[in-house]
Amino acid sequence: MIKISIVGASGYSGIYLLYALASRPDVFISAITSQTYSGKKLSEVFPVFSKSGFLKRNYVSELKFELFDRDKISESSDAVFFCLPHNESSKLVPGILNKNGKIKIIDIGADFRFDEIETYEEYYGKHSAAELNSKFLYGLADIFADKIKNSQFISNPGCYPTGALLPILPLVINGAVDFSIPIIIDSLSGISGRGRSVKPDNMFCEVENSVKAYNVWSHRHLPEIKEKVENAHLNSGGRQENSTPYIIFTPHVIPVSRGILTTIYLKLNKGVTEEIVSEVYEKFYGGSPFVSIRGNAEDCNLKNVLYSNNCHIAFKADKKQNKEMLKVISAIDNLGKGASLQAVQNMNLMLGLEPDSGIPEYSPFP
Amino acid sequence: MIKISIVGASGYSGIYLLYALASRPDVFISAITSQTYSGKKLSEVFPVFSKSGFLKRNYVSELKFELFDRDKISESSDAVFFCLPHNESSKLVPGILNKNGKIKIIDIGADFRFDEIETYEEYYGKHSAAELNSKFLYGLADIFADKIKNSQFISNPGCYPTGALLPILPLVINGAVDFSIPIIIDSLSGISGRGRSVKPDNMFCEVENSVKAYNVWSHRHLPEIKEKVENAHLNSGGRQENSTPYIIFTPHVIPVSRGILTTIYLKLNKGVTEEIVSEVYEKFYGGSPFVSIRGNAEDCNLKNVLYSNNCHIAFKADKKQNKEMLKVISAIDNLGKGASLQAVQNMNLMLGLEPDSGIPEYSPFP
Amino acid sequence: MIKISIVGASGYSGIYLLYALASRPDVFISAITSQTYSGKKLSEVFPVFSKSGFLKRNYVSELKFELFDRDKISESSDAVFFCLPHNESSKLVPGILNKNGKIKIIDIGADFRFDEIETYEEYYGKHSAAELNSKFLYGLADIFADKIKNSQFISNPGCYPTGALLPILPLVINGAVDFSIPIIIDSLSGISGRGRSVKPDNMFCEVENSVKAYNVWSHRHLPEIKEKVENAHLNSGGRQENSTPYIIFTPHVIPVSRGILTTIYLKLNKGVTEEIVSEVYEKFYGGSPFVSIRGNAEDCNLKNVLYSNNCHIAFKADKKQNKEMLKVISAIDNLGKGASLQAVQNMNLMLGLEPDSGIPEYSPFP
Amino acid sequence: MIKISIVGASGYSGIYLLYALASRPDVFISAITSQTYSGKKLSEVFPVFSKSGFLKRNYVSELKFELFDRDKISESSDAVFFCLPHNESSKLVPGILNKNGKIKIIDIGADFRFDEIETYEEYYGKHSAAELNSKFLYGLADIFADKIKNSQFISNPGCYPTGALLPILPLVINGAVDFSIPIIIDSLSGISGRGRSVKPDNMFCEVENSVKAYNVWSHRHLPEIKEKVENAHLNSGGRQENSTPYIIFTPHVIPVSRGILTTIYLKLNKGVTEEIVSEVYEKFYGGSPFVSIRGNAEDCNLKNVLYSNNCHIAFKADKKQNKEMLKVISAIDNLGKGASLQAVQNMNLMLGLEPDSGIPEYSPFP
Repeated sequence: MIKISIVGASGYSGIYLLYALASRPDVFISAITSQTYSGKKLSEVFPVFSKSGFLKRNYVSELKFELFDRDKISESSDAVFFCLPHNESSKLVPGILNKNGKIKIIDIGADFRFDEIETYEEYYGKHSAAELNSKFLYGLADIFADKIKNSQFISNPGCYPTGALLPILPLVINGAVDFSIPIIIDSLSGISGRGRSVKPDNMFCEVENSVKAYNVWSHRHLPEIKEKVENAHLNSGGRQENSTPYIIFTPHVIPVSRGILTTIYLKLNKGVTEEIVSEVYEKFYGGSPFVSIRGNAEDCNLKNVLYSNNCHIAFKADKKQNKEMLKVISAIDNLGKGASLQAVQNMNLMLGLEPDSGIPEYSPFP
Repeated sequence: MIKISIVGASGYSGIYLLYALASRPDVFISAITSQTYSGKKLSEVFPVFSKSGFLKRNYVSELKFELFDRDKISESSDAVFFCLPHNESSKLVPGILNKNGKIKIIDIGADFRFDEIETYEEYYGKHSAAELNSKFLYGLADIFADKIKNSQFISNPGCYPTGALLPILPLVINGAVDFSIPIIIDSLSGISGRGRSVKPDNMFCEVENSVKAYNVWSHRHLPEIKEKVENAHLNSGGRQENSTPYIIFTPHVIPVSRGILTTIYLKLNKGVTEEIVSEVYEKFYGGSPFVSIRGNAEDCNLKNVLYSNNCHIAFKADKKQNKEMLKVISAIDNLGKGASLQAVQNMNLMLGLEPDSGIPEYSPFP
Repeated sequence: MIKISIVGASGYSGIYLLYALASRPDVFISAITSQTYSGKKLSEVFPVFSKSGFLKRNYVSELKFELFDRDKISESSDAVFFCLPHNESSKLVPGILNKNGKIKIIDIGADFRFDEIETYEEYYGKHSAAELNSKFLYGLADIFADKIKNSQFISNPGCYPTGALLPILPLVINGAVDFSIPIIIDSLSGISGRGRSVKPDNMFCEVENSVKAYNVWSHRHLPEIKEKVENAHLNSGGRQENSTPYIIFTPHVIPVSRGILTTIYLKLNKGVTEEIVSEVYEKFYGGSPFVSIRGNAEDCNLKNVLYSNNCHIAFKADKKQNKEMLKVISAIDNLGKGASLQAVQNMNLMLGLEPDSGIPEYSPFP
Repeated sequence: MIKISIVGASGYSGIYLLYALASRPDVFISAITSQTYSGKKLSEVFPVFSKSGFLKRNYVSELKFELFDRDKISESSDAVFFCLPHNESSKLVPGILNKNGKIKIIDIGADFRFDEIETYEEYYGKHSAAELNSKFLYGLADIFADKIKNSQFISNPGCYPTGALLPILPLVINGAVDFSIPIIIDSLSGISGRGRSVKPDNMFCEVENSVKAYNVWSHRHLPEIKEKVENAHLNSGGRQENSTPYIIFTPHVIPVSRGILTTIYLKLNKGVTEEIVSEVYEKFYGGSPFVSIRGNAEDCNLKNVLYSNNCHIAFKADKKQNKEMLKVISAIDNLGKGASLQAVQNMNLMLGLEPDSGIPEYSPFP
């Protein structure tokens, strides 16, 4: 039985993770924490879960939110998930490690996503556990599975970066991208991407029937995408010599609850045809349980990936005007593949399980 | 009293036009045609209009849809609007002109939008009145108002081109754009953009909670945008010498009824700062009743332009990574500014009226 | 020029009222108050209004939210609108009247809606100005227009009561209703009915794709409906002798921004046929600019009344099972007819203007 | 291995059934029929299913829609599901029975739902297999489970009747209802309830932001509800002596894809308290895997039952005005509990399996 704890279990990603894990017969939830709801029973705070069979498991129906207790969590967990606002998990991880040096950590927040601590601090403020940063591996599970299998510390990717990097990195790693012009990433996210905070921007009457872009040059997921593309470019080694990747990213919010559709515009290196792109993806994702290539951009839509850990990708080169420009479109569920289900996939890999072990088909909330 | 006829008055753009014009005291509707509904009263086919005060005008409440009658329309109209599928208006215009050489024509369809008949035919098939094509002026009303005032024949721009060209053309005309890399136009359209056709793609259950891209390299509005940008580039004359504009356009459909949000990525020429961009727009649109520049991308959203003939524009240069890349965002109502209200604006200009004369604030359908 | 002030101008009903009144050439807005936004300009807090032509009126574009100032408002207003949470307007009205005994008051809140102060206090708590209560007239404008014309103090009806009473009262007044069984009122309201408060219940992800009933036996609008039906029953005098009206009311919240659809089930007195019902409504509403009877229940829908001061009514007796049961359906815009536009209608009546004078067709927010 | 066929597998209920059954290891799909899509592969017609793991089962990914073939289906099936427009299954069932007298039949359509063939014919037209009608049992699975276990022929209840009868029948069977006044059933259904037909009423732009009632006294589900309530009343025997049940039913369509919320108003017999109602439900549904009683009307909402075979019920008596009136609210997924998943539950019962065996948590379409 895998004993796990979830720190910050009442936000959208925490509660989804809880739902996914509590449904599994091979997992035991040792603790769920919430400052807002400590002392209350899960079923009382989220009556929606009474729909689900998993509450019929005796211990789950009795689960209560607690305040964070370092000692309890250290002693009772094989793995701990952190689902906290940025700069919170980095304050708690060191204390847990002092107590239980072998515990596995999966951080859904941003604290340990960057190789360069300076980049983190530029966008998120002072880091609280910089000395631990290098221990963490970036958990883009469908690309870095081999390394994740041997890791104790995983930082789970952001939702936009997941939707952008899964289609881009295979091309960069294979030296297919011409960096002489920018890679443009245009993303459309459902409202749940803003988290469960109660503010005007999330109110029905303010978002219904509308669409907008936000943080047009300054979204925190831009440097995350950028660093990972640069790393992949450097690691792909010498097959090209042009400049540093220049990434442009624009997030938009659309009136749906869930999902991210990402449209990417990039230039291919000379000689890289649509067929070669197809081969690259086939090589990368041919055996993947989660990433699949669609023949048709219209099939690569949100409906087809809702509630899943899947990423759908479609691509097409400009045969008319200029063969070298490629559009790549990806669709994910921002809370599933973009957060909680990728975290479960990471846990599976870290524990030597099949990556798709116990990934649920649905989540009743939100 | 301005006598007008609307040919094809039962689609989304025709009915909106009818609503806008029938509300005006200075306009008399001579005829409305519809193959589907001929013989039926407007108020019977569209009970929603009974909400509106305009049906209280006696003649309007008695209006009936008719079959197209060349003679009747030629004799009873000062101006005729065509709201038909492509390649239909070009079959009817010559007959009307034979009868009434002075009649003003505003075509909401695509038939006369292109300077190059070859481009039209590549995307839409054989043209039925190529000899008339050069008489038509492209009615992008906020840019070409002076020419429109003296025109008898106007082709009303497509919805996506309106959303793209209003922000792009002033920059091109002022030589601000560096064409060494593509201009990328990423657009999000409400469902009504597909017209009132009854097909699975327009059904609630199929589009709700989803988003997708379509016609990713082949949408018919791409060559329209391209031709107008090229023309502007040529006309701006010699302030740069780089290659032909390369335009990339991706339409997406989002689960709202109305509106188009367009995000544009382009490179500025050396020395063109955000401040200069601001001046260009101020010079172009400073006195415009319809186009306004928003200081903030989040304010440039669909909600702020619904049911209007307005175009909101926001822009921002990349100060962090590279000053030369500019994002420009525009928001329009696809049926208002993108079709019927721009057609009214064109009519106003052609008739020597104020451009904002009788532009309604709302439309009860769709 | 009619000088008005709006106390509490930043909620949904206040801002709508402001929009409606500021668009009028015969109205001058003297003051708008808001605790949250005092000191800020209207156009800054609600950029959506920059869409609207009314901000081009110089003084409107300069309007600032202020704190409530009894003296300023008393001196500068012919009429004052209160758009406040319950039990707030009753604290402010007396002070204003001390300063300006002739000022007209229209209260959109609940404080003065009840004849019986005990009923108010049972549902809303201690009343702060019980001595003024009897001065106020219940402003159901399409029914009590004659009395409203001579009133100085109007309490504007609640949104659900407006949707319920407009169809019910004419039947009760004409002695058509058999009270031996309950009148059942089943209402469906858009999210904006809950006001602009920022709470989980109003968040997109929590209400999208769902529907629920709430306050199933205890909603505050029940006693309001009940009192007005009882009054009408008593006033209709002696044409029947059965018991006190028994009203059952169930509000539901549905995932649209605006509108209330009400389905009413009632028993007709013996001999009251569908034709007689039709005559009753014709007599009552035949000349009304706002209330109209639809021949078809499907036409009596939200879409047909959005943004309007209209009430659509459809009705049908059970010809198959039992002629005496009648269903009546009404559709209103909860913020228009159900709040701000009915308030404007009331103001028009109080000032001797046409009831439909300056009623806008649209509101850009929410 | 249970061999099943689905006749009419490309509508909303057929495809959902297919999804549910094809996911099961103990079921083998022998044939799926569709006139529209015959000859095409499932995965080609519904690419959305490629998301789902069930297409990885080899035979499922190869499934093709076929034309109806009596012999093939008779020979290769243990059970056949019919998901056809009314009056279609009754034409096909006799031929299949001639070939395979032991085959189990579950008809999701209306053909065999009525005890009284006259009632059927009044609402649906001439019946094609009246001689078989009496063999069919009404498959309201949570109430008639014991009889269903021994049945070969099941007619699956309509969606509205399921939402209405699950809460009403236990009260009627226990003699709790006073029939001296009507039972009023007010239902709100998502758009998918109209089926997958492509017509204006189902188009996004026509239903979004609106709500309406339809077929206000004549919906075909009214006589179905009525017959079952009358039967239960008669069978409950002599604990009361008032008149025939009078049922009033109003369906509304709301802008969500799925779900039915039903609000029921009924009078309790003297002495039947809220506590007794609670006991009745506890006795009936206490051990049910699918029906649960919620303490709070707000929890009895669509979100909590989406994609499920659950029925949530909440109830409350009028303690203030009159103890004897009861409101009961139920929430179901119209396509799950209201159609396909209840059909699976019926199949499970007929085959001696646990009722909740293989009920999926989700359906990717619609």
